Amino acid sequence: MSKLTIALDVMGGDYGPPVTIPAAVLAVQQCPNLHLILCGDQTQIDAQLRKAKFTQTDQLEIIHCSQVVTMDEKPASTLRKKPDSSMRRALELVETGEADACVSAGNTGALLTNAYYVLKTLAGINRPALVSALPTFSDRKVFLLDLGANVNCDSEILFQYAVMGSVLAEQVEGMVNPRVALLNVGEEQIKGNDTVKNAAQLLSEAPGINFIGYVEGNDIFSDKADVVVADGFTGNIALKACEGFATLVLNEVKSASAESFFTRLMAKMALPLLKRIYSRVNPDQYNGASLLGLRGIVVKSHGNAQVDAFLYAIRVAMREVDQQVPNKIKHKLEIVLS
Amino acid sequence: MSKLTIALDVMGGDYGPPVTIPAAVLAVQQCPNLHLILCGDQTQIDAQLRKAKFTQTDQLEIIHCSQVVTMDEKPASTLRKKPDSSMRRALELVETGEADACVSAGNTGALLTNAYYVLKTLAGINRPALVSALPTFSDRKVFLLDLGANVNCDSEILFQYAVMGSVLAEQVEGMVNPRVALLNVGEEQIKGNDTVKNAAQLLSEAPGINFIGYVEGNDIFSDKADVVVADGFTGNIALKACEGFATLVLNEVKSASAESFFTRLMAKMALPLLKRIYSRVNPDQYNGASLLGLRGIVVKSHGNAQVDAFLYAIRVAMREVDQQVPNKIKHKLEIVLS
Repeated sequence: MSKLTIALDVMGGDYGPPVTIPAAVLAVQQCPNLHLILCGDQTQIDAQLRKAKFTQTDQLEIIHCSQVVTMDEKPASTLRKKPDSSMRRALELVETGEADACVSAGNTGALLTNAYYVLKTLAGINRPALVSALPTFSDRKVFLLDLGANVNCDSEILFQYAVMGSVLAEQVEGMVNPRVALLNVGEEQIKGNDTVKNAAQLLSEAPGINFIGYVEGNDIFSDKADVVVADGFTGNIALKACEGFATLVLNEVKSASAESFFTRLMAKMALPLLKRIYSRVNPDQYNGASLLGLRGIVVKSHGNAQVDAFLYAIRVAMREVDQQVPNKIKHKLEIVLS
Repeated sequence: MSKLTIALDVMGGDYGPPVTIPAAVLAVQQCPNLHLILCGDQTQIDAQLRKAKFTQTDQLEIIHCSQVVTMDEKPASTLRKKPDSSMRRALELVETGEADACVSAGNTGALLTNAYYVLKTLAGINRPALVSALPTFSDRKVFLLDLGANVNCDSEILFQYAVMGSVLAEQVEGMVNPRVALLNVGEEQIKGNDTVKNAAQLLSEAPGINFIGYVEGNDIFSDKADVVVADGFTGNIALKACEGFATLVLNEVKSASAESFFTRLMAKMALPLLKRIYSRVNPDQYNGASLLGLRGIVVKSHGNAQVDAFLYAIRVAMREVDQQVPNKIKHKLEIVLS
């Protein structure tokens, strides 16, 4: 097994080192070929490593960074004001080739802005996309993009997203000839706004893309498509609406327990099951969203990720390195655009 | 109580007369001042009235129509090809003033197209909107619009939707100074696409509109706003994504019952409660969406509505007649735009 190096922004997320360091320790213990570069505050990192009773240093390297991007900071201002942030440094290690990928649970907007600035996009890609794998009615996953990286999308950008999503589904999930669909308000050809219609035209003519047409919002999870493409505005709102709806139902179950004895019993039985299911299907909890379209691999862990979830994000990054996702996107784009 | 006349497209929906006629009978039995004009196939209407053992004719009038708009028909072609459809006739009765409102469970696109063609929009309104009241974490409802009437919206149209939603919340739900928000990818002022930002600017300057800024997808149901405004593309997809997510969770609960004895027990207890809650909160089941912005009242019942749901849609129409919603929208627009 060849060595694999991943840079971690250990200061990002709602919890920072108390979550990211234990996850890093677990990751290197589980993967002997994994080398992690921990970017962040040396003192805090040391303290967490001591707490985890971890002494071996071959697999872990620390790069002290004097700055931290906070969760509510404005993306653009972090570019100017935080050149030594743990986030920026982790991205720079990917740019210089010292790391094969980078993982951060930090401020999404800032990560996008910094990643775009440091790594640049692949040739043929205008803007990066944020993509996540979600569950479906079957055992297959569905890749939904864009989740909010780019709120002003034209049909050319939707087309590029479709190509990137297709490569990710093929390389990371091993899907053969993944079914690619555009998210729309109806399945008929005449439906939708102009941007979506033009993107459909581009996709139906693209070689090597299994474009199956439109799917509606209720079919995101129904295993009709392996890749569902939307502009970042719609994708973000659709995903978050599901999150809000899940919370609404949980609240209803809780308040139902104030009714009769029998309803209380039903609610008591339902709640743990529902919570377990939501932890698996709640898009907000589903971790390891990828920034696609950059000249390097960047994985975004959810801000409130716990140790397991951050570890999962590291594994997503490892898989993308292993499968050389950016190279394959580049290659696919050359075929499709030739 | 003054007489109130509502035209019903009794042929619309997945079931047609077997659902719409019993609902009509119940409606007139419950409301002595209600007069219903049943538009549709005379033979089928007569058969259903006989089945319901309903003989009183003062409150029910039948207008025989030779055509029916099917659920999958292309909206534009119904304008040319179905001049004698039950849907078109019901709308025409509103236009001539013979009816105060119209209710249909038919093809949404066709209803929008025919309503726009027959009734026209109010002065100051470019396009009608489809709006529905949804549940929130609290006892208050939230009005979400547009649900798909208009997929290409500029900021001017979003502004008009906000005004219409505000009037509906005030008049139909009796909300005082309803909180109006734009659906966006973040709550900060700098977030969103240009259309949303420009609409926010217009709304923040409008007198008589309690504009509270942006809400994200996860806050649609959280009672942060009374009226949530989106373009028809985003609104439709957000609502349907929730519907798909609800189905995903129900499926997961069902399949969980194949696991251990205890999980099976939990699932068995959870399922009826979940179904009950979903029937209340599932946006797809939530009935009585209104077409706002027209020179007349049109209420859309869900295609697969059963008797109770269609009856509910009739009640929504009655309430809007009672509150003279179109007049009040017109009046509010005059104030806001003056």
